[in-house]
Amino acid sequence: MSAIFKSRVRNKLFLSKFVENPTDVVRAHFRDKQHVGFSGFTGIGGPKVIPNALCEYTRYHHLNMPGENERQMRFNLYVGASCGVEEDKMALENMIAKRTPHQVGKQIRKRINSGDTLFFDKNLSLFPQELLSGFYNKELNLPDPAKTDTLPSNVLDIAVIEATAIDEDGGIILGPSVGATPEFLAGAQKIIIEVNTTIREMKGLHDLVLQKNPPYRQPLMHTKVDQRLGSEKLYIDASKVVAVLESKIEDHIPENSPPDENSAKIASHLINFFKDEVKHNRMPKNLFPLQSGIGNVANSVIGGLANSGFKNLQVFTEVFQDSFLDLFANGSLDVASSTSIRLTPNGMKRLDKNWDSWSKKIILRPQTVSNNPELIRRLGVIAMNTPVEVDIYGHANSTCVLGSKMLNGIGGSREFLTSAKYSIMHTISARPTPTDPIGITSVVPFVSHVDQTEHDLDVFVTEQGLADLRGLAPRERALEIINKCAHPEYRPILLKYFSDSVKRSNGRMHEPHDLHKCFEMYFNLEERGSMRAFKPSEKL
Amino acid sequence: MSAIFKSRVRNKLFLSKFVENPTDVVRAHFRDKQHVGFSGFTGIGGPKVIPNALCEYTRYHHLNMPGENERQMRFNLYVGASCGVEEDKMALENMIAKRTPHQVGKQIRKRINSGDTLFFDKNLSLFPQELLSGFYNKELNLPDPAKTDTLPSNVLDIAVIEATAIDEDGGIILGPSVGATPEFLAGAQKIIIEVNTTIREMKGLHDLVLQKNPPYRQPLMHTKVDQRLGSEKLYIDASKVVAVLESKIEDHIPENSPPDENSAKIASHLINFFKDEVKHNRMPKNLFPLQSGIGNVANSVIGGLANSGFKNLQVFTEVFQDSFLDLFANGSLDVASSTSIRLTPNGMKRLDKNWDSWSKKIILRPQTVSNNPELIRRLGVIAMNTPVEVDIYGHANSTCVLGSKMLNGIGGSREFLTSAKYSIMHTISARPTPTDPIGITSVVPFVSHVDQTEHDLDVFVTEQGLADLRGLAPRERALEIINKCAHPEYRPILLKYFSDSVKRSNGRMHEPHDLHKCFEMYFNLEERGSMRAFKPSEKL
Repeated sequence: MSAIFKSRVRNKLFLSKFVENPTDVVRAHFRDKQHVGFSGFTGIGGPKVIPNALCEYTRYHHLNMPGENERQMRFNLYVGASCGVEEDKMALENMIAKRTPHQVGKQIRKRINSGDTLFFDKNLSLFPQELLSGFYNKELNLPDPAKTDTLPSNVLDIAVIEATAIDEDGGIILGPSVGATPEFLAGAQKIIIEVNTTIREMKGLHDLVLQKNPPYRQPLMHTKVDQRLGSEKLYIDASKVVAVLESKIEDHIPENSPPDENSAKIASHLINFFKDEVKHNRMPKNLFPLQSGIGNVANSVIGGLANSGFKNLQVFTEVFQDSFLDLFANGSLDVASSTSIRLTPNGMKRLDKNWDSWSKKIILRPQTVSNNPELIRRLGVIAMNTPVEVDIYGHANSTCVLGSKMLNGIGGSREFLTSAKYSIMHTISARPTPTDPIGITSVVPFVSHVDQTEHDLDVFVTEQGLADLRGLAPRERALEIINKCAHPEYRPILLKYFSDSVKRSNGRMHEPHDLHKCFEMYFNLEERGSMRAFKPSEKL
Repeated sequence: MSAIFKSRVRNKLFLSKFVENPTDVVRAHFRDKQHVGFSGFTGIGGPKVIPNALCEYTRYHHLNMPGENERQMRFNLYVGASCGVEEDKMALENMIAKRTPHQVGKQIRKRINSGDTLFFDKNLSLFPQELLSGFYNKELNLPDPAKTDTLPSNVLDIAVIEATAIDEDGGIILGPSVGATPEFLAGAQKIIIEVNTTIREMKGLHDLVLQKNPPYRQPLMHTKVDQRLGSEKLYIDASKVVAVLESKIEDHIPENSPPDENSAKIASHLINFFKDEVKHNRMPKNLFPLQSGIGNVANSVIGGLANSGFKNLQVFTEVFQDSFLDLFANGSLDVASSTSIRLTPNGMKRLDKNWDSWSKKIILRPQTVSNNPELIRRLGVIAMNTPVEVDIYGHANSTCVLGSKMLNGIGGSREFLTSAKYSIMHTISARPTPTDPIGITSVVPFVSHVDQTEHDLDVFVTEQGLADLRGLAPRERALEIINKCAHPEYRPILLKYFSDSVKRSNGRMHEPHDLHKCFEMYFNLEERGSMRAFKPSEKL
């Protein structure tokens, strides 16, 4: 037991549960087919020691090897969103039988698309409620909801969470993410805690609540982003804790790619839009609270905001990212609420250096709060996310490429877009294929998978321009999206699809489509390596 | 001025605004291109005198006649949901240039599908907020949101509402629907009130609040269905009222078709499901608050509940319908919250007869409350709605037949399904075409329009059976839906589509589809009058 570990685990009862060797924990507590919950959100704050030991154990005992033997070690794995490289190692060993609500990683994605791992993507704020309602394991004995407001404590066999410390009073001090950790700890029969001693103690950052299930659920009372209404620490039933381990493994957040010309143009269109909204008094001068997804474009937009003269900005999002640090640095950001601090190693160093002043402005909340439609609607959030593609009427695909191949899952994008005051999607208008530098258009006639519907989208932006869809009927939307946002090479193709469909509709269609032709761009892509050209006979 | 009218308008200021002839009002206040709001929700509680006068005026002056002259009388028309036959008369005169968020009626639907009327369907609880945020008329001068929480009073040129009385203190006593009336009255420059003297005064039924726009919005504090937290009457700026008229026109709600064998089977499957949920403590014995859509199946389900021994039921829905009266009659329903009482003439008589005891259990709320995701989520609502069709992975089409032809719009279905604890859709498995008694299947490979996504649906029911989709991955969902819910004649066709797609996916697809074939059933329908048979060469 290291000195720093001792200084971090300040409660005697928890300290007495220290286990040196993670393999002992694996051998004693993990079995095939268990329901297991890991802390972590967007690749940060997840357990690492136990997952690594699980992989080693599985490899060593030749479990999950086809034909080798019949012994298996495969789990129903729940993580608030995504866990990090350790989860991908488990996927490589084929240890994940079922997975919800979100995932990121090459191996896990491969397992999902091959059908080895059964995956269902779920709205992130709803997932913990469904888990604690016994929706994912229908054989459980649950407490009678008419008699008690107690949450069930058996929906998970084991919860494995990372913390940065355990205080004298037994309160768990979490690390850079909250996610579904409060619900996992409440709902697990056994708890394993990894105290990570390579990162600083993050006391004071968290604002934690554990909501009751209906019919006992209470309002979330926040009317402003910066209201702290919960607890700094998590208090749990210590008798459920079967092991406390030390972790010296750091999270691996990859560096962001530098902003390029196109994402800078998107940011510029959006900032002009915000300025115009402010001018017309539809937004206050400090805008509404901002939600921003992950990725190059999202980073550019936040970067653009940092240089636009906006003051007293507020962030109400699920992931705090490097780009927000620039807003702290120039004093334009008052408060940032999220459920994870997903910072690159450089970003983490930068935050560390400014910890005393910047950390006061960060609030980490459970994903049931950070992504809650109740708060998103009430606060009037401006939600900005990147889809795979958008169709001419405003339906968006965020998950399944070519209608079928899963990327990461719905994540928080739908909860934010459905409930936001401003529902915005941004992406570049065209991407390259091996044979065509603009072989894939992000504006298509009919998206091959729908995650967000036309009813949600207020604004769509590409480097070409911004389409303001508010108050427009489908036929108006189609022209606005094609003319403002589509890549010029795809504009005539899309306009032809639209006008042919209108003609074909013969006055009998509200949202004219030709189901015979709406997917032709995908067929072109499959057959010819580019979405351009509707007829296979045409040359590029 | 009739004696009964005088007894209903008990405030002198309002009485002084009496106008006998509606044409005088039309001539004085209505102009082409105005933004006009009508009260009413699901065909009840809308204005009738003024719409009729508007139609007459338009016809008489030969407005909106192609080629006749250039004078027009066409409006941007807003109604909470749908208004009734008077709106359809206006559609016949081509008086509706733009319409949101919902509609019902043969003429208006025709105008929308022909493109004469530009329509966009919107989530019903969000629509009033967007209207009052100036999203639908971007030229308006709005109050600075940083300086005042005052709502704009210029988003509508005119609001025309029906009331049942105006009290001594000037408080408006609404009728059988609330809808978006509070927001219309706040947001209009001019107000016209029709006091309907053919229906009883409905004092005490309403629970009215007017929410502020973000950033001033407050929590809705309801934690139980029966909490009255608002006002019984609406208080408005009387200086905006330009006319008070008497209306003697009744609403026309058509009789429900009697429950048939199939809808009784659907009800029975659902009730068995509820009983099983209660047995496993996933639902309390009195269930969770019920939301139920409009239509034959919905009526049967409620009818079935009335005969199933459930007690102390609660309803949290948007429309109160005849079937709920049976629950009052046998004492099994404690409280019903909605935004409209859509009763047939017989139902209205029945309620009238039992007014003193039953009306105490009814609460009429604005649609911003009845349909609010915040409350739907918190209360744990069981949402039940009827789609046009559902696909094998759980996406649903509620609005556009064959991907293009508008029925009525999204209505409240999506807000309820997205936020409910139990998101349920029910419909019969197959419907007839002129040439095939089961020519249309309600389970298809890929819905031609997506309104609700796979992320929303917990349970799908047809007369064939009930598919419990909770916790299932797409490939599991497909088999559950096809095997439990599809019509037996369509089962092999759907299974073949699914297994061919899985084969084709070659281990690289999470949600296997063949975009070349997913719409073939629609092509069959167009070409051969039935969705059965994939190949045009095959005989039925």
